[in-house]
Amino acid sequence: MDFAARLAETARLTDAALAEALAGLAAEGRVPATLLAATEHALLGGGKRFRPFLVIEATILCDGPADAAIAVGAAFECVHAYSLVHDDLPAMDDDDMRRGRPTVHKAYDEATAILVGDGLQALAFEIVTAPPVPIDAAGPLARLLAAAAGFQGMVGGQHRDLNAAGLDADGIRLMQGMKTGALIRAAAEAGAIVAGAPEEARRRLAEFGALIGEAFQLADDLLDIEGTAEETGKRVNKDAEGGKATLAALLGPEAARVRLGETVARASEILAPFGARADVLREACRFVAERRS
Amino acid sequence: MDFAARLAETARLTDAALAEALAGLAAEGRVPATLLAATEHALLGGGKRFRPFLVIEATILCDGPADAAIAVGAAFECVHAYSLVHDDLPAMDDDDMRRGRPTVHKAYDEATAILVGDGLQALAFEIVTAPPVPIDAAGPLARLLAAAAGFQGMVGGQHRDLNAAGLDADGIRLMQGMKTGALIRAAAEAGAIVAGAPEEARRRLAEFGALIGEAFQLADDLLDIEGTAEETGKRVNKDAEGGKATLAALLGPEAARVRLGETVARASEILAPFGARADVLREACRFVAERRS
Repeated sequence: MDFAARLAETARLTDAALAEALAGLAAEGRVPATLLAATEHALLGGGKRFRPFLVIEATILCDGPADAAIAVGAAFECVHAYSLVHDDLPAMDDDDMRRGRPTVHKAYDEATAILVGDGLQALAFEIVTAPPVPIDAAGPLARLLAAAAGFQGMVGGQHRDLNAAGLDADGIRLMQGMKTGALIRAAAEAGAIVAGAPEEARRRLAEFGALIGEAFQLADDLLDIEGTAEETGKRVNKDAEGGKATLAALLGPEAARVRLGETVARASEILAPFGARADVLREACRFVAERRS
Repeated sequence: MDFAARLAETARLTDAALAEALAGLAAEGRVPATLLAATEHALLGGGKRFRPFLVIEATILCDGPADAAIAVGAAFECVHAYSLVHDDLPAMDDDDMRRGRPTVHKAYDEATAILVGDGLQALAFEIVTAPPVPIDAAGPLARLLAAAAGFQGMVGGQHRDLNAAGLDADGIRLMQGMKTGALIRAAAEAGAIVAGAPEEARRRLAEFGALIGEAFQLADDLLDIEGTAEETGKRVNKDAEGGKATLAALLGPEAARVRLGETVARASEILAPFGARADVLREACRFVAERRS
């Protein structure tokens, strides 16, 4: 199976796991219906399910259990979805639309959107500490996820991004590495933990995750500079107009493209000990770097 | 040592653990200074540290390690502090002051307050999954905390509270049991997990936690009805003026006081197998029920 088919398949499995988690919340009748509906709006609005793909493929690469990998992938998606809901709030990026639908605070209200995000973060930790996740992996997975989501990761990165005017290349790399890179890196590393893989495999997958995260961000920046609105399906040149520094803008598109190529090569190289079995992850990295939308 | 002295001592230990956690965040220089200062504002503004007290005393009762109990208590306080910061936001309860100081969104800004809360939730999970917490306890503690903080606990309870007009007694009990009760119950239960205590002890401490949480809430309601602003240090009759249903208002103060007495008696009884060693927890329950501020 090639990368596109694997990505579609892991997205399907993730959506099913998320729907099951929502059904579990609804079952006892304690969670208000509006809050549940708003959470479903936040979780099931599409998206590539790229972080779950990384968790699942990294787990398979390390011969770990697929059912646990799917659950942990869903937990990563909960954290990702929560960060989007909070980032869209009026006090943050103030976005009305996401993926062609109203954002949660527009479709419901601000209080509900804040609570949806808060609850999704907690839900992620419930999922990684419950069966079918192996009991030995629960603590380390919760710790990894908390570090990626917290002050030294996503939360700190978002605060840096809100105050990003005038950052230099190092400042931008640090901000992006925290804001989006930390969770992508942790997703790849999580697969090794689910599988109980040796420290060396875990270290390599974490490094691969960091590199694919960088490629993801560079490609995103380039799309913003060079893509057309038609191709990307969203407004382009938004970063420059918003006074937002990006690494690609700072380097210039040609140099950024060279760096992107180097990043893809290093990501492929770091998985060398896994041989051809890691090809789907290598292909994922190329796909991320070359995407036009 | 009597209850008041033990409460003061556990508060001191908790404050030290929280200060250490903040110093840890600051050490690497990745977390923006403003975000750190706002987090410190949220965490170190006083408070009785009642949840850490429950964690620590329940751990000691089950002969568990004190250093782990202090860490877990600090994690519960992070979750409690995060919920206060988010509840104070303009879209929620819109409070400008807390414990005589400006709320986080007033002292800083809304975006920072949202991020402080998000980061404190993640920090709690980092703390319960790291040494000195025993590795076997990390997963179960993270799961307990996530359930108490999430949709079926604090988050769901806050959403119910925002839409509480016209609730009957059962509706109010459910809302309060989720909003404030779940975390207090979990704090007592957490002590048994830290200590690796048998299932029976864990069940009894959880039940004790549920009862002390109910006593806490009933006493709070009664203070709002009967206390003077001078005694309580805050505006009274706020609930009735805000159209907020409380159990004490619905039962009437006399019946509420009778129920409070019954709750304290049951809380004391449930700890019978622990004998006199549980007296400090019994005393805590009486104190909570009889407090005038």
